[in-house]
Amino acid sequence: MASDPTRIRRLPEKAVSDIETIYQILDEGFVCHVAYVERERPVVIPTLYARRDDTMILHGSTASGITRAVRRGSPISIAVTHVDGLVVARSGFNSSANYRSVVVHGHGRILQGQEHLDALDWTVETLIPGRLQELRRPTEHEIRQTATIEVPLLDVSAKVSAGPPDDDAGDLASDIWAGIVPMMLVAGPPVPAPDLREGINLPDYLDPYQR
Amino acid sequence: MASDPTRIRRLPEKAVSDIETIYQILDEGFVCHVAYVERERPVVIPTLYARRDDTMILHGSTASGITRAVRRGSPISIAVTHVDGLVVARSGFNSSANYRSVVVHGHGRILQGQEHLDALDWTVETLIPGRLQELRRPTEHEIRQTATIEVPLLDVSAKVSAGPPDDDAGDLASDIWAGIVPMMLVAGPPVPAPDLREGINLPDYLDPYQR
Repeated sequence: MASDPTRIRRLPEKAVSDIETIYQILDEGFVCHVAYVERERPVVIPTLYARRDDTMILHGSTASGITRAVRRGSPISIAVTHVDGLVVARSGFNSSANYRSVVVHGHGRILQGQEHLDALDWTVETLIPGRLQELRRPTEHEIRQTATIEVPLLDVSAKVSAGPPDDDAGDLASDIWAGIVPMMLVAGPPVPAPDLREGINLPDYLDPYQR
Repeated sequence: MASDPTRIRRLPEKAVSDIETIYQILDEGFVCHVAYVERERPVVIPTLYARRDDTMILHGSTASGITRAVRRGSPISIAVTHVDGLVVARSGFNSSANYRSVVVHGHGRILQGQEHLDALDWTVETLIPGRLQELRRPTEHEIRQTATIEVPLLDVSAKVSAGPPDDDAGDLASDIWAGIVPMMLVAGPPVPAPDLREGINLPDYLDPYQR
C-alpha cells in the first residue's frame, strides 16, 4: 500500500494492467471510495457501485456531494479495495497487508431517463442477482431522488499484493513466527426483517448470498 | 451511502459526532482511503493507518503520492469504512448497505526522528498487539524508506447505517422477502510462511487474530 517503487519491485505487490483482473476486483466489491475536489480541497466518500461492461455505475442521491461534483464537470477518482490479509513478516518494514485495489480516474456522466432507469436496474441486479424481477418498479419520486453516474474505465490501474512475507535474508534465522493472517469479507446468514410477513421464505438467490 | 438529506432522516442512517463512536470505528480498521489533489485533480489511494489518541498515523513510503502531497502542504481527506451488510428492502430505493464510516479532513504532518520511530512502533503494535517486543529494531535504511504522517482528528465526522430495512408502508404487504445480509471482515487461521523454521509456534497474540 502506497509503497515506494523499490518496495514494489521487492515485494509480491505488483501493478496489474490486464482488464480481466481489474474486472474481477471490481465485480467482487460493491462499495467504492470516490474522491472529488470542492473549493480546492479533496473530499473522499464511500458509495455503492456496480461495474457494467467497461464502466462503473455509481449510485447516489441527486443531492450528494459526488453528484454535485460530477454535475459541475469536476474530475473524480475512485478506489475499490479488498483487504485479503495481514502480512506478518520478521521485521516491521516487511510487514504489510495483502490487498487488491483498483483506482480509476475520470469524469462521470449523470444518467437520465431510460439510461438512469437501466442503471438503477443494473445496480439492483448486480448487487443481488435474481432480485430485480421480484421488485416492484421504482416510483417517479424514487427515480428523481436517486442519481446514477457512469464513469468509463479508461484511466484505470490495479495493484495486487499477495502471498507470504518476503523477508530480508538476514532475518530468516529469526526465532519469531512469520506468515499471513488471511482476511475476507464474508456474508452471514440473512436475517429477516422484524416486519416480514409470515410464510415468506428466504429466496434461493440469498441462500446463501455470495459474491 | 452518499444519501440525500431526506433519506438521512428517514432511514436508520445517521450522522454520528460522539468521539467514542468515531474512535471505535477507526480502531476496528487498519486500511483507510486517502484523497489528495494533484494538478487540480483528485487522487484516492488506500493505505495503512493506526489511530493514536486524537490523531491518525498514516503509514506509507517517502516516495508515495500521499507523502508528497502532505510535504507540499496540500489538504487531505481520509475515509475509513466498514461494510456491515446488505439491506434487502422490498423496493430498490430502500435497499442499501449497512455500514459505519468516518471521514476526516485536514493537513498531515510528516513525522521525523524519534517521532517517526515512535509512530512506526505504534503502527506495528496497533495492528498486531504483542508483536513489537519480538521484532528486531528497524534499520536506518528502513527508517528512511518509510514515512509516517500524523493527521489530527479535528474535522471528523461519522455516519452509521444499521438495522433492518425501513420500507414504505405501502410495500409491507409485499410477498417478497426483506431483511439484511450481515457482512464482516473476518480473519482466518494464520498461515505460516513457507520459509518458517521448524519448531516456531504461532504466538498467542495471533491465536486467534482479532480486531
